[in-house]
Amino acid sequence: MSLLVVGSIGIDTVETPTEKRADQLGGSAIYFSYAASFYTKVHLVGVVGKDFPSVHRTLLESREIDLSGLESAEGKTFRWTGRYHENMIDRDTLKVDLNVFGSFDPKVPEAAREIDFLFLANGAPSVQAKVLKQMKRRPKFVAADTMDLWIETTRGDLEVLLKDIDALVINDSEARMMTGQRELLRAGLDILELGPPIVIIKKGEHGALVVTRDGHFAVPGFPLEKVVDPTGAGDTFAGGILGYLAETGDTSPANLRRAVAHGAVVASYTVQDFSLEQLKRIKRGDLDNRYAMLLDLVRIPE
Amino acid sequence: MSLLVVGSIGIDTVETPTEKRADQLGGSAIYFSYAASFYTKVHLVGVVGKDFPSVHRTLLESREIDLSGLESAEGKTFRWTGRYHENMIDRDTLKVDLNVFGSFDPKVPEAAREIDFLFLANGAPSVQAKVLKQMKRRPKFVAADTMDLWIETTRGDLEVLLKDIDALVINDSEARMMTGQRELLRAGLDILELGPPIVIIKKGEHGALVVTRDGHFAVPGFPLEKVVDPTGAGDTFAGGILGYLAETGDTSPANLRRAVAHGAVVASYTVQDFSLEQLKRIKRGDLDNRYAMLLDLVRIPE
Repeated sequence: MSLLVVGSIGIDTVETPTEKRADQLGGSAIYFSYAASFYTKVHLVGVVGKDFPSVHRTLLESREIDLSGLESAEGKTFRWTGRYHENMIDRDTLKVDLNVFGSFDPKVPEAAREIDFLFLANGAPSVQAKVLKQMKRRPKFVAADTMDLWIETTRGDLEVLLKDIDALVINDSEARMMTGQRELLRAGLDILELGPPIVIIKKGEHGALVVTRDGHFAVPGFPLEKVVDPTGAGDTFAGGILGYLAETGDTSPANLRRAVAHGAVVASYTVQDFSLEQLKRIKRGDLDNRYAMLLDLVRIPE
Repeated sequence: MSLLVVGSIGIDTVETPTEKRADQLGGSAIYFSYAASFYTKVHLVGVVGKDFPSVHRTLLESREIDLSGLESAEGKTFRWTGRYHENMIDRDTLKVDLNVFGSFDPKVPEAAREIDFLFLANGAPSVQAKVLKQMKRRPKFVAADTMDLWIETTRGDLEVLLKDIDALVINDSEARMMTGQRELLRAGLDILELGPPIVIIKKGEHGALVVTRDGHFAVPGFPLEKVVDPTGAGDTFAGGILGYLAETGDTSPANLRRAVAHGAVVASYTVQDFSLEQLKRIKRGDLDNRYAMLLDLVRIPE
């Protein structure tokens, strides 16, 4: 089955403690789409400015990502500059230019309004809700990401959205902020009360905790000897999850576990280089091999 | 098979963001022994002062812990006062009085010198090495803990010890400090090079990463809705691991995984209350039930 994603497309400048890379392809919808494209047909809805390099468009097309919902608006593409701390987890945003993304009013193309799997990447909850309303029928599975900004400034809108989605994907620190709970299990249970039957709490290098009405699931981050740039890890994690769910068409609790493990695998490749560089080097077979390694990593023999 | 532990015994005063408890039983060897006693016969070697309350001795005896190696010296028992930060991970040591522990010169009782499983709880590496030398034959399995103090001040001694043990149990931050590596897998691999074939890196609420020459294993922390006091989590984690290995007499890679999972389970009970309070309320069956829940938590269906 195919998968629709609506979110940001940006040009990023990223500094790590050891390196700096300017003007790279980034944005939540980009990372998500590229990761999900290993699993299923992806339709991307987003906006770029007239300055968006055609080479990026070509790259996405090479992954057979449908760009009919990619709007090209007068003005410049969204830009973000950030610097990671020594711990490679915390980061400071040095500069944000929303540009054309500031007035982004997503329009899902007619042909994509019956897609069964939908990911509402991080954005204003009211805009996320508008996208969901554009669908001709309720998709089989809707997941959304959010961030501290929306939790703080548009909490009411976010709580409305939460009643209409199947899964919330959220960072550990944001889950804590949203609920005032330090323990992630407690935070996840509190978010379940707000509506979504599945809460996927991202813990960076420590993997994820999935809290659901049917039970809970923990997956570690795939251990790496070297992390180059964490940018996009969370979005490619979500891309792997939704991509696998859409590929299999199976949203059962058992298959959700497999999907989350695939998400962890794709995210582990993402952080091995800047931007999409490492993902551009791999094939689906590499993901499946690392997935098998992840299965072995967590296996507790009977 | 039985299990010998050598380490500290203390009276702790602990402050969390919400509560303070004074004069509680603590110390690495105490936490370790109590946890391991659910699995196997434990011999404890340590030192207390004349002020050590007899009620603590009675408690340990109720767990059939052999106290023939518990020395009672002139002076006062080791005392530690600490305060946890809001994140319940970082802590400040407010006060340390080594007292009789400052000149601790462990003597393993004759009858305990042929025990097959040995845990050298956190202490000066030269003292840990002296204990190992007292054994009549090389135990089947020797594990040791260490801390930042020894890594910084007695690195040479520590490196000598590392060549003689089977497993090092170490905190994530200490593994990073010891190796200068941020990624825990890389840190673990670097420590393997120093000698021990097994490196067990403790990650607090995030569980542990086990790096071995035979492959790696990740276990999450058992998710809890409430953490009351993290003190002793690492020592009871080690107690569960060594206790299970000694109970089964099996140090194979597969059984090490089961043992580490048991360690995570005991540690999860420890942090649910101050000192040994929660462990005092549970039975082996509770550990086995939570172990089954942990198996389900990490299960990725085929």
